[in-house]
Amino acid sequence: MAAVAVATRWWLLLMLSAAELGVAPAPQPPNILLLLMDDMGWGDLGVYGEPSRETPNLDQMATEGMLFPNFYTANPLCSPSRAALLTGRLPIRSGFYTTNGHARNAYTPQEIVGGIPDSELLLPALLKGAGYASKIVGKWHLGHRPQFHPLKHGFDEWFGSPNCHFGPYDNKARPNIPVYRDQEMVGRFYEEFPINLKTGEANLTQIYLQEALEFIQRQQAAHRPFFLYWAVDATHAPVYASKPFLGTSQRGRYGDAIRELDDSVGRILRLLQDLGIAENTFVFFTSDNGAALISAPRQGGSNGPFLCGKQTTFEGGMREPAIAWWPGHIPAGQVSHQLGSIMDLFTTSLSLAGLEPPRDRAIDGLDLLPAMLQGRLTDRPIFYYRGNTLMAVTLGQYKAHFWTWTNSWEEFKQGIDFCPGQNVSGVTTHSQEEHTKLPLIFHLGRDPGERFPLSIASIEYLDALRRITPVVQQHQEALVPGQPQLNVCNRAVMHTVSR
Amino acid sequence: MAAVAVATRWWLLLMLSAAELGVAPAPQPPNILLLLMDDMGWGDLGVYGEPSRETPNLDQMATEGMLFPNFYTANPLCSPSRAALLTGRLPIRSGFYTTNGHARNAYTPQEIVGGIPDSELLLPALLKGAGYASKIVGKWHLGHRPQFHPLKHGFDEWFGSPNCHFGPYDNKARPNIPVYRDQEMVGRFYEEFPINLKTGEANLTQIYLQEALEFIQRQQAAHRPFFLYWAVDATHAPVYASKPFLGTSQRGRYGDAIRELDDSVGRILRLLQDLGIAENTFVFFTSDNGAALISAPRQGGSNGPFLCGKQTTFEGGMREPAIAWWPGHIPAGQVSHQLGSIMDLFTTSLSLAGLEPPRDRAIDGLDLLPAMLQGRLTDRPIFYYRGNTLMAVTLGQYKAHFWTWTNSWEEFKQGIDFCPGQNVSGVTTHSQEEHTKLPLIFHLGRDPGERFPLSIASIEYLDALRRITPVVQQHQEALVPGQPQLNVCNRAVMHTVSR
Repeated sequence: MAAVAVATRWWLLLMLSAAELGVAPAPQPPNILLLLMDDMGWGDLGVYGEPSRETPNLDQMATEGMLFPNFYTANPLCSPSRAALLTGRLPIRSGFYTTNGHARNAYTPQEIVGGIPDSELLLPALLKGAGYASKIVGKWHLGHRPQFHPLKHGFDEWFGSPNCHFGPYDNKARPNIPVYRDQEMVGRFYEEFPINLKTGEANLTQIYLQEALEFIQRQQAAHRPFFLYWAVDATHAPVYASKPFLGTSQRGRYGDAIRELDDSVGRILRLLQDLGIAENTFVFFTSDNGAALISAPRQGGSNGPFLCGKQTTFEGGMREPAIAWWPGHIPAGQVSHQLGSIMDLFTTSLSLAGLEPPRDRAIDGLDLLPAMLQGRLTDRPIFYYRGNTLMAVTLGQYKAHFWTWTNSWEEFKQGIDFCPGQNVSGVTTHSQEEHTKLPLIFHLGRDPGERFPLSIASIEYLDALRRITPVVQQHQEALVPGQPQLNVCNRAVMHTVSR
Repeated sequence: MAAVAVATRWWLLLMLSAAELGVAPAPQPPNILLLLMDDMGWGDLGVYGEPSRETPNLDQMATEGMLFPNFYTANPLCSPSRAALLTGRLPIRSGFYTTNGHARNAYTPQEIVGGIPDSELLLPALLKGAGYASKIVGKWHLGHRPQFHPLKHGFDEWFGSPNCHFGPYDNKARPNIPVYRDQEMVGRFYEEFPINLKTGEANLTQIYLQEALEFIQRQQAAHRPFFLYWAVDATHAPVYASKPFLGTSQRGRYGDAIRELDDSVGRILRLLQDLGIAENTFVFFTSDNGAALISAPRQGGSNGPFLCGKQTTFEGGMREPAIAWWPGHIPAGQVSHQLGSIMDLFTTSLSLAGLEPPRDRAIDGLDLLPAMLQGRLTDRPIFYYRGNTLMAVTLGQYKAHFWTWTNSWEEFKQGIDFCPGQNVSGVTTHSQEEHTKLPLIFHLGRDPGERFPLSIASIEYLDALRRITPVVQQHQEALVPGQPQLNVCNRAVMHTVSR
C-alpha cells in the first residue's frame, strides 16, 4: 500500500513496460469516482449525527472506509468550489470570484459570461494521460457558454446541465436551463426534464444514477480505467426526489432527496462490488458547500453543530461531509483528523493515476493518500475566501477570522438569512467587520461552533496568532489572482456576448 | 427474545419453580448496569457526530448495541432527572421541583432541606424483590440529609457523594461536600478527595471505575444478579480528569474528562465480556441533562445541532445520548426511533427483573424492551417541565412550547447564558413568554434545532395542535403534584432543620 503513495507514475511505468515486453496486461490504475453533493451539509448524514439517521448506505460506506470530520470546501458556493475540485486550485487563482463588491459571493446565473478559462488544467484532461475515460453526470457550473462546456475541458462524456436547476423561467427573456448529452442539448429543466415545484417530484436522480451505472459497466467491459464525476443536485433548492422516495423521510422533502441520494450511492457501491472492481475503484463522497439554511427547514439541510451555512465562511458554510472508500486499500472504519480540502481530490486523483500535478502553476491540493493509507497527518492551512477577500484561515485547531460578515443588512431585512437562529454577537454580523489587525480566533476543537472567541489578552491567542501570521503572509505575497470570471453583467451585456 | 418482553415475572417464576423442584439453578435475571453521565450533551459522542471523535469505546458500544437518537431526560437539571430515573416518575410527582418561582429550576445545594420522600419507591428497593444486590457509585443528589441517603432508599452499597462537587467552601459556614462509603462519611471533596481547580486533575473517575469493577466481580463470584447505578460526575463543572488523560483531548479539559469516561466504559464492558456475563447483563448509557453551555467551551460540552443547553427545555437541555447494550439479546448496530425517556429505565429494569411497576401510583416510564428486542414503536408524549410549570410537550415529530424562557434578564446581564450563540427571535427569550393559547410548534424531524416555528395559519400547525391538545389536557387533569422538595430556604432555616 505504501508504494501507491510514494511511487508517482508507477502505474504508468508498469503499463508501458508491460506493453513493450508483450506480457500479460499490467494492473490498471484504480478507477476514480467522485460523488459530489449539492448544498448537502455536514450534519445531514447519520454518521455525522443527523438525528433521524436516514443515510444507511453512506453510514455503511463510512464503516467500510475512512471518515474525514475536518474536510473543507474551497468556497461556500457551488461554482467556485467545483472549479477548485477540478483544478486543485483556490478559486481566486482560477478566476472563480468577483470583483463586483468586497467579500461578495458570486456564482453563475445566466447573467454571467465567464467560465473556466482555457488556461486552467482540469482533472479529466490530465487523467487522459494515464488512459482514463471520463464522464461528468449532473451539474457543471463552470460556465454555460459552449466554449466552457465539459467536453471542451477534458471530459469524454457528459449528461447534465451547465447550470443549476434555477427557474422555471419564462422561456423568452430567460429561457429554462438546458440539459446536455455531450455537446447536444437534449432538453430543458421544467420541460423535457420536469421538476414539480409543488410536490417536489422529479426523476432526475434516477436518470443520473442510471447514467453512472451504465458508464461504469461500459468501462469495466472495455477494461478501461475510468474517472466518473457524479455531480448530482437533488439537495439544492428547489429540492426534489422521485416518487418512490417522496414523503418517506422524517425530515420532509429535503430528507426525501437525501434518502434517494443515499440509496443511489448504495447502488453504485454495490455495482462496483458485483462487478468485482471495488478493490480497484477509489470512491470519495463530499459536498460542494454547507447546507443552505435560507432554504431550511423544508428545502435546506443541517450543518450539525457548526455556525451558519452556505454563502458564509463560518464552519457551517465550509466544512463538508467526506468519506473515502477503497476496499482493501483504505483501512475500514477509520477516522482521519487530516485537515482536508476539496482541492485535495485533484491531487489525490492524479497520484492514484500515477501522475504528478502540473508544475507550472500553484496547486493548493495535497495528496491525501499518505493520510488514507498510512495515517500520516500533514499540517496545512485552510483558506476561506469570499470573492477575492481572504475572510479567515484555519491552521491546526485554530481559526482566525480577518473579516466577519454573513449577509448584508439589506438582504437580512428582506428575510434572507444565512445563519437563522445563530446570532453570535460580533461574529455573525450584517455589516462587514474588519479584524485584520487583531483577528477573531476560535479553537475549533473546544468550540467547533465558533461561539467563544479567544481572549485577545490570552497567551493562547498570541501563540495561535504567531503561528498563523507568517502562513497568511506567505500565502498573500505569493498569490496571483486569475481574471475574475464571475462579475455580474447586466442582461444586455450577457446577450451581446453570447450571441 | 420475544418472551422477555411479554412474560412479565417469568424470570421469577422460573427461579421459584426451579427452587421447588430442587433442579439445577435456573438462569438469573440479567444484571442491570445504568451508566449515568453528568451534564454530558447529545453532541459529545463520536456516534452523535462530535467532530473530534474521541469516544471510541462508546461508539463501539453503539455498534454492538442500539442507539436512541430521540431519548429525553425528565428535567434539564441534575437532581430532578435523577429522581425521575430511580422512581420512573416525573419530578413534579415525586416533589423534585420548586414553588419558589414560576418556571424556576431548582437543584440541591446545601440550602435545600428536602430530598427523596419515604413515600417514593425507588428502583433498587423494588429490584430487591427479585434478589438483586445494588450499588450506587458517584453522585446521589436526592437529598443530602441522612434520612434521604441511598442506603435508606434501597441501595445495598454506596460510594460517592450526596451532592455535586461544588465548592470548595470555607469549611466553616459552608463545609466542603462529603463523600460516603455506605453510611460512613469517608472524607470531603477538595480535602481527602482532591480536585485541582487550576489543572483539573482529580482521580475520582478512577476511584469510581474501581468501585464498579470490584462490585461486578464480587457479585459475579457470588452468583447474585446485580443492579449497578454508575453516576459519575467528571463532566460537570468544575470538570476533571486523572493525570494520564489531562491534555490528551483535542477539545480541552472537558474533552479530557470525556476521554477518561469513555475509557472507563470500555473497561467495564470488557470486564463483563471477560467474566462471560455480557449476555446476561443489560447496560444502558445516558446523561442526566444536556451540556451546560454556560461552562463552554473549556468546561462545557456540546449539544450537537440542538438549541440551548442545561437548565432549558429546548432540545439542547433535554435530549440525551442513549445507548442500550445487551449482546445476544438487543440486535447490534440498530437505531431506534422510539421517543425514550430516562424514566423508562425504571420500568425497563423492572421488566428485565420480571417485576411489575407499582400500581398504586402514576408511573411515567415505559418498558423499552419491545422497542429494543422487537423494534416495536410506541407513541407517547415527552413532557418538559421547569419547576412545576409545563413548558412544552413532544408527541411524535411535533414539539409544542407553552412557555419559552431561557434565563432571566438579570442573569443574562451578569453573563449567565444557557444558549450562547443561539438567539432565535421569540424563542430564546429572557422573559417568560406565554404561548398556552397558541403554542409555538416545531417539527423536530425537519428542524431539530427549533429554529423555524410552524406558521400558526398552516394546516400542519392545526393538525399537530389537534393531536397534542387532548394529550396535554389528560396529563394535566390527572396530575397530582408531590410536596415540593427543592424550595430554597435561607441558611438559617437550613441549619435549624438539619440540626
